[in-house]
Amino acid sequence: MNLLECSFCRKNKAFYVRSYEGIGLCHRCFKKNIEDRVRRTISKYKMLKPNDHVAVAVSGGKDSLSLLTILGKITKRFPKSRLTAVTVDEGITGYRDEAITIAKNHYKNRSINYAIVSFEDLFQIKLDQLVKEKRELSPCSYCGVLRRRAINLAAEKVGANVVATAHNLDDEVQTAMLNIVHGDVTRISRVEPVLEDPNRRFLRRVKPICEIPEKEVAMYAYESGIEFQKVPCPYMATSLRNDMRSMLNRMEVKHPGTKYTIFRSTEKLRSALKQYGGKTELKNCRYCGEPTTTDTCQVCKILKKAIP
Amino acid sequence: MNLLECSFCRKNKAFYVRSYEGIGLCHRCFKKNIEDRVRRTISKYKMLKPNDHVAVAVSGGKDSLSLLTILGKITKRFPKSRLTAVTVDEGITGYRDEAITIAKNHYKNRSINYAIVSFEDLFQIKLDQLVKEKRELSPCSYCGVLRRRAINLAAEKVGANVVATAHNLDDEVQTAMLNIVHGDVTRISRVEPVLEDPNRRFLRRVKPICEIPEKEVAMYAYESGIEFQKVPCPYMATSLRNDMRSMLNRMEVKHPGTKYTIFRSTEKLRSALKQYGGKTELKNCRYCGEPTTTDTCQVCKILKKAIP
Repeated sequence: MNLLECSFCRKNKAFYVRSYEGIGLCHRCFKKNIEDRVRRTISKYKMLKPNDHVAVAVSGGKDSLSLLTILGKITKRFPKSRLTAVTVDEGITGYRDEAITIAKNHYKNRSINYAIVSFEDLFQIKLDQLVKEKRELSPCSYCGVLRRRAINLAAEKVGANVVATAHNLDDEVQTAMLNIVHGDVTRISRVEPVLEDPNRRFLRRVKPICEIPEKEVAMYAYESGIEFQKVPCPYMATSLRNDMRSMLNRMEVKHPGTKYTIFRSTEKLRSALKQYGGKTELKNCRYCGEPTTTDTCQVCKILKKAIP
Repeated sequence: MNLLECSFCRKNKAFYVRSYEGIGLCHRCFKKNIEDRVRRTISKYKMLKPNDHVAVAVSGGKDSLSLLTILGKITKRFPKSRLTAVTVDEGITGYRDEAITIAKNHYKNRSINYAIVSFEDLFQIKLDQLVKEKRELSPCSYCGVLRRRAINLAAEKVGANVVATAHNLDDEVQTAMLNIVHGDVTRISRVEPVLEDPNRRFLRRVKPICEIPEKEVAMYAYESGIEFQKVPCPYMATSLRNDMRSMLNRMEVKHPGTKYTIFRSTEKLRSALKQYGGKTELKNCRYCGEPTTTDTCQVCKILKKAIP
């Protein structure tokens, strides 16, 4: 193979060598290939239907803005489908404000429908405050639970029937490995590319870029001229996820394809765990009425303790 | 808690702080505690019976010589039990010869029954030669398969009905994580603390120190005045296991108890995979007749290709 030539079009120069497939890609074919792969992921996992109203969770980072761009292209072919960006302001001073400005500009320049909700409006507390008051868990643990709820509430508000989140391959693989490290293996069976309740008690959740490595999502954003927030969240350094991220990146460099192999391993484990563990019964939270597996949902557990 | 005082006897000074339990231990109580824990592991997994003849696989390193020492103390209480050390000479110049001298001295000074077998005698090839001729897999992959067979043959030769190997907590946790990284999740269900064939087509295999962290096994060896080989195997650097080892060690320092948590996760995954995957059918290898899951066993696959 001539690495200077794109393996797809055989015409243009390759600007990127994809080690795990041993191919080179030119700018044009790279972008097209990423979009095709997302399309394949959506169809393989039956993520979307032609008349879906999709709420895309957008933080203003490379992953979510790339997802929004790709879904925009894909849904254009389906006249009955709709797309709305939903953005959550967690209340992280000096960080989230910048991301929201970037996201808003993105929406306005491209005439994308959007809604912005904030922790402060929904839960009467900012993340910065919550982190000061509660220290049992990492900031990411609190934020993850509340942000998920906020996205759901925003999606319901705009009338969407599906929530799309921008979890990439690296996120999914890190999460699976962390579940094992944390001893929470049953969670592996619940973290999947598409999650739907047959009784429709919660909105369908899909992860269309879950098979694209983080590095390639970032490249897609650059290649598409998307402006995105580059500063990492100030709370990120405190998380164990960082260790896992760097370990997996080192392995991927030494053994290209490792992340995909772990992703497939996780799928096999998920099948086994689902058969073994059976269905988790969904109840309604005694405080807010939202679906939960326990008596009180995680959101209410966090908020009851934070607000006197 | 006063960290200068042993948490067990409350008399002697603690020389070691066990972070994952938040306790301090004196020299005497540390040794006793390790032996008690091995006894508990043996009883929990029903590893040994009072009249077993146990072949202990001894390399000459800290793990196997500690295992031999602890099993010596445990089996002393059972007059009908027997213990024989079996040592394999893989044929690694400048490395294994030293280990064998150390092991032999250990046996002779303590009047322990032993048998030594070699790859050269059993398979007509040394590991050094094999590694030169075959390069598809890592040296550790070839060595692992052949050494396991060699230990079995030695154990049968001395008339043992059980094989005890010195896999410690770190080994087991690394192996489980590597199986996921390699995409070989069904293997998790086969790597367990005790492995027994109801039809007795192979010897029972037990891992009595699988719940003791590597660091504590090393400390036990030092505390017991055991002389052991300290040089690592010259082929070790080529293995992916090294990456996993250092990642897990970093995590354990930051979050004491991580290795135990992963060990428990593995147990849950194993139960799920066993129920899901069902039983693996054992056949007999068409070349050597030994039990195998495929038509030709791994040993014959390696040897057929290596020797013209």
